[in-house]
Parts: sequence; C-alpha cells; structure tokens
Amino acid sequence: MSLIVQKFGGSSVANAERVMNVARIVTETSKAGNDVVVVVSAQGDTTDDLIEKAAEINKKPSKREMDMLLSAGEQISIALLAMAVEKLGFPVCSLLGWQAGFQTNSGHGSARIKKVTGERIRQELAKKNIVIVAGFQGINKYDDITTLGRGGSDTSAVAIAAALHADRCQIFTDVEGVYTADPRKVKSAVKLSEITYDEMLELATLGAQVLNNRSVEMAKKYGVVLEVLSSMVRSPGTIVKEKTKMEKMLIRGVTKDTNCARISVIGVPNVPGIAYKIFGRLAAKNVNVDIILQSVGRNDTKDITFTTSADQVDQTVEALNEIDFLEGIKIEVDDKNVAKISAVGAGMETHPGVAAKMFEALFEADINIQMISTSEIKISVLIDKADADKAVEAVHNAFIPEIG
Amino acid sequence: MSLIVQKFGGSSVANAERVMNVARIVTETSKAGNDVVVVVSAQGDTTDDLIEKAAEINKKPSKREMDMLLSAGEQISIALLAMAVEKLGFPVCSLLGWQAGFQTNSGHGSARIKKVTGERIRQELAKKNIVIVAGFQGINKYDDITTLGRGGSDTSAVAIAAALHADRCQIFTDVEGVYTADPRKVKSAVKLSEITYDEMLELATLGAQVLNNRSVEMAKKYGVVLEVLSSMVRSPGTIVKEKTKMEKMLIRGVTKDTNCARISVIGVPNVPGIAYKIFGRLAAKNVNVDIILQSVGRNDTKDITFTTSADQVDQTVEALNEIDFLEGIKIEVDDKNVAKISAVGAGMETHPGVAAKMFEALFEADINIQMISTSEIKISVLIDKADADKAVEAVHNAFIPEIG
Repeated sequence: MSLIVQKFGGSSVANAERVMNVARIVTETSKAGNDVVVVVSAQGDTTDDLIEKAAEINKKPSKREMDMLLSAGEQISIALLAMAVEKLGFPVCSLLGWQAGFQTNSGHGSARIKKVTGERIRQELAKKNIVIVAGFQGINKYDDITTLGRGGSDTSAVAIAAALHADRCQIFTDVEGVYTADPRKVKSAVKLSEITYDEMLELATLGAQVLNNRSVEMAKKYGVVLEVLSSMVRSPGTIVKEKTKMEKMLIRGVTKDTNCARISVIGVPNVPGIAYKIFGRLAAKNVNVDIILQSVGRNDTKDITFTTSADQVDQTVEALNEIDFLEGIKIEVDDKNVAKISAVGAGMETHPGVAAKMFEALFEADINIQMISTSEIKISVLIDKADADKAVEAVHNAFIPEIG
Repeated sequence: MSLIVQKFGGSSVANAERVMNVARIVTETSKAGNDVVVVVSAQGDTTDDLIEKAAEINKKPSKREMDMLLSAGEQISIALLAMAVEKLGFPVCSLLGWQAGFQTNSGHGSARIKKVTGERIRQELAKKNIVIVAGFQGINKYDDITTLGRGGSDTSAVAIAAALHADRCQIFTDVEGVYTADPRKVKSAVKLSEITYDEMLELATLGAQVLNNRSVEMAKKYGVVLEVLSSMVRSPGTIVKEKTKMEKMLIRGVTKDTNCARISVIGVPNVPGIAYKIFGRLAAKNVNVDIILQSVGRNDTKDITFTTSADQVDQTVEALNEIDFLEGIKIEVDDKNVAKISAVGAGMETHPGVAAKMFEALFEADINIQMISTSEIKISVLIDKADADKAVEAVHNAFIPEIG
C-alpha cells in the first residue's frame, strides 16, 4: 500500500461534472489500495471573481484581508469535492490549510511554507478517510490566514508529500505530461516518460508552464517523486525525479518564450565598474536579467545589451534612467519582436557539440541568432519573434528523433 | 467610551455599495469614541448559491462538509467589509469564527455555542482595530468548522456581546425597529422605543421576524441590551431589555400568523388518557402543537381540535394515522383558511380585562373567533384567514392609541 498525494488545479474542478471526474480518479486510487491525500485549487474563475469583488470596494486592500478573501475559494472547492467523494460512497474529510497544519511566514500574498505538521492528515488517513486539503493557503504564527501566491497549490501538494513521506505526488493538469516541445505547435513532439528536477526547473522557467518552479525546487530538496499527468486522459504521465535513464537523448525539451524584451545601452564609457553599477541597480529594483551581451562600441565606448521579461521593461528603463553616468546615453528597447528559444537537457553536460548542433539547425532554417546564453543543461538563443515557431521545430527535430 | 457590537445581515452587505454603507456606520461609531466589534452574515444570495452548487454534486452531502462549504460565505463578506473600512482609513482586522474563539458542540448545521473565548478580539481592540467577525460559524472540539443554523449571525453577535460585556448589541435590519403591528398593513402602527425580552420572544415566535429567537433567549440569559435598528435609515431603533417603562401601554404588538393549520379529530372515545396518547405521539414526531380545544361530541365521544404550523400538517396526519384507537375516526384538516392573531404585552399580567377588550374589538369588526389561547403576556385567537388583516387593525387600534 502506497501513500499518494494528488493535486488538481482550478480548471479540473471548474464545474460539477469535473468535480465528479476528479472524485472518480481519487476514489479509484483509493480503491486500488492506496492512502490518498488530495490537494485542490479554487474552482475555475473563483479567484478572479473574488479579486473583482475586492476591486469594486478598495483598489488597494491590505494583503492580509486579500488572503482572507481569496482563501475562501479553496474552501468551497474542497467541500464540493468531498461531497462528490461521499456521493461515490467513500469516507472522506476535507481540511483547510490551518487544519492540515500548514505553517507559513507572514508574507501575505506570497507566504513561504515553514512547516507542515500534517498531524490531522495522519489521523484522518488512519481512519481510512480520503483526505482533501485546501491548496494555496496556510496560517502564520498569529493564526492569520496566508496564501502562497501563484502556483501555490502545487507547492502545497509537494509540501504534504514531503511531510508525510508520500510515495508519489501526482500533479494533474490539462496536458498529459511534459513534452519535448509544445505538441500544439510541433507535430513530432513526444511525451517524456522521465525528466530530472533540474531539467524540469529549466523548462518551467522557460515557459513550459506545466509545473510551478517553487514546487519543483521543493520536490528536489526533499526528494519527492513527482508525476505530471492529465485529469482528462487516463495514461501514465511524466515522472520528475533526481536521476533518470539517459538513453540516447541529449535534450529533453525545446521551449519558446515570447514574453521577453531586449534592452540595449549604446555607447557607455569604457571604464571599470560599469556592468556592476548597471546590473546592481537593476537587481535592487528586482529586475530579472537573463542573457547579457557586452560589445566594444565606437570611440572607446561599450554597448551593453541584455534581456528581461517584457512586463519588466518599464521598471528596467526607470532604473536605468536613475543611473547618473547613463544620462544622455541612448537606451534601445525591443519588447515586441524578440523571442527566446531554449534547448534543455542534462545530457548536454557530458556530450559536447550540442550547442553547435543547435546553431546548425537554426542556420539551416535561415534563422538569425541575436544573443546566446548557456548553462550546464541549457542553451538559449534570442531570435526574431516571427521565427520563433519555426526555430522550435528546427531545433526539436534536430535532436528529438534520436529518442527512439 | 463604550464597547458596541453591531450585526449586519446578508442584505445589508449584498453589494459593494451596501458594504461601503455598512463601513460608514461602523467607522462613525468608532469615530464617536467607541470600541466596535462587527458581526456580518454572508452576502445576499451567497449561501443559496453555495447550496445550489452542492446540490448539483450531491443531494445529501454530510453536514460537516456543508458547514465547510457554507462558512466560506461569511469569510468573503468579512474580508470585503474589512477592505471597505480600510478604504475609509480606519484600522481594522477581520476574524473567522475559530479565530474569534467561537467554540461550539458538534451539531453540524445547527451547532450550539459552548463558549466564546474572545481572546483575539480583545487583542485587536487593544490595538485600536475595528474588529469584524464572521457570524454563523464556529469550531467544535475536533477543530472542525460548524455553523449555527438559521439566524445564527444574530446569535453570534449576542454571544460576543455577552463574552465581552458589551454595552450594547445593535442588530441592523431592513426595518427601523419593532413595531406594534406590521407598518405596511396597519397605518397607525408605531415603533416601540423599548420592549422586554419576553415580549420580544412572543413577537418573534408569532412571526414578527425581526430577531432570531435563540439570540433573544441568549440576550435575556446574559443580560445583553439589544437594539434593533435600520442599516438604511439613521434613527434610534427599539431597545430590547429586561425591564421597560410600562407607561399606559397594555400591549406591545399585534401579530398575524398565516402559516397555521387547524386539525380536528372528530368523535374519539370519551375515556381517560386520550389527550395524553394523541399529543404524546405528536411530540414524539416533533410536531409543535399550539392551541388545543377539547369539546364534548355526540354519543359519549369527544372532539379534539388543535393548531400547528401549516408545513407540519403532513407529519401530523401521519402521526395520527399511526394511533390504533383513531382508526376509522374522522380527521379534518384546514391549512388554507385560518390565521392566528396575537396581542402581546407584559402589561396584561397586571391589568385584567385585556382579553375582554380584544374580544370586544373583534366582535365590533364582525370577526368570528374559532379558538382562543392565552399565556401570561399573550392572547391568541384563531380566525378566518380572510379576516386576518382586518382583525390585526381592529385589535391594534383598540389598544395602541393608549400609548400617547
């Protein structure tokens, strides 16, 4: 008998029919002889509806009261799912974050989990109940309700799995697993049976949008075996764990990120400390800089170009304008026409030539590379946004046929 | 400086505009130098919407999960009201039932309050916060959420007022106070400035529908001074307390109850124990019997007639049919054409002749009395439903002009 944690997102419980579907998955897992703890998010648009209600009253409510408001969403969904499980004739008990023992810091709106006591969960499992826990929420040391921020329910599920030493943490989504590329765009994309935590982290950061990054980091830290799978189609998903069979596969996936901007600072004085001062200021303003390129300009000046996410452009330019020595210096912004294509795979650590093969594929597809960035398990290039889908397909097909 | 508890029902916080209106009342009370604890119900139709969501999934959900579901309604309304108070620039803190220390028994759906610790409420008041508490909810000894059942928010407010020794508990409704008769029907109806707990209890039972009975009983037990007033019109309401100035007023109010039925058992054997057997069986079936009349029938038989609420007719007839010696005996039911008119007033205890005056008024209005029942502070008569409004006006006008 195993202990399985199953997490379902808001779209999986959006209406009565889908709630019943989730109840069937959960009860089948229980019937197969497993202890089951279920984590659910708020139904479909509930959170957005609540945010709108708040905005009608106060555009800038305190984060504490916002957490009080939003956490009602998961309360509704756990009760409804519990009723669906009752309907199927299985013993069940729903628990709020505080009842399940989710202790967080006081960072309302994006609280960090300090501890999951899980005492009550264990008691209910011992009573043979299916336990349904509200995701996304906890309490701080003052007994105030906190929420974990975006993707918080994934993190809740992993935290429970870690606290209870679960055999597996299944994250149900609207896709069947992690693919080598977006299957809606790349026909030859294949579902991965396994992927490492590090690869998953790179893919998540790069916009694969399957798993929340914090939850993968936590799974890695506590060695929780994750499985990403579909709540609609019953088939094995993708297992995320520390080590995977390497086979002949050099890369695990190719992703596209169109939410990026290229910013160039043209002709800064060629003196020491310039990069430090620019990127220090950007860091102080919480701007996440990705690829950085520095080139020699004319007349003993330098050009510094970097990328950031498109929605951070305003605060980036604002930060740059505050730097004394950049006064009067030209800043070019392109947040409309660029895209970042990345190939990710732990295999490239031990196999040279991956970058070359990627560049060759792009060259043959007649795609110009603007910037390049590499890490141990990732190669990213910035290209013209119009070429993005073509680039993903070209890179994907250069590597992925090697799988079989 | 006083401590005031203010309770607002669901219609008072039904939309953003009304929430802001409540926030203004609350903050004005605070600005006048009072400590303020506010109890709110779920917004308008929220509870009904949640019940409907549940019914789509499971027609007979467990009461525990129903409480989990419904208590989300007050969570939403306390957060929104807190945001409205923040908007007006006042310090505020919302608290759920368990945070405020509402300990109840485990009677999910209609739990009884065992204790209100109120520790957190006191802490927040000490910090000069306006405290907003979710009505209708608490937790049992297992830390499961419970709800108090119908009118539960009134009871929550009175329980807090009792626990904190509040100077007053104001119940805001959509009427301006307690009237001597329904002001929409009886033009000469006047608002009472004061009324006793006992009178209020009789009026509430009789369908005045201003205050929930359990809350009045609790207020009486703990000596909490209540005030019933309007959330829309700013004027003093009706004070409910132990003793009131008697003045010349013999009765406090005249009410009409059209949700009643007259049931007659015709020609039962005239032997001892008949009444005991009939009404014992009805009590066992939870039928609330009000007026009882027994008369001699033909051939050494008796006729027994009694009243009950119209919605209990089916279970009443069912119970009667189970009694052996009533087999073949005629049972007449009239749940369409009768109404009960009652006059209530502590004054009648010490003033004889009230009943006579009431009967005289009905006689002069040409209204036939079918049954009569009296208690220390109440006289009820059963009449033809078609005469009900005329009867209320006649009785009201016979007594109420004495006020001035």
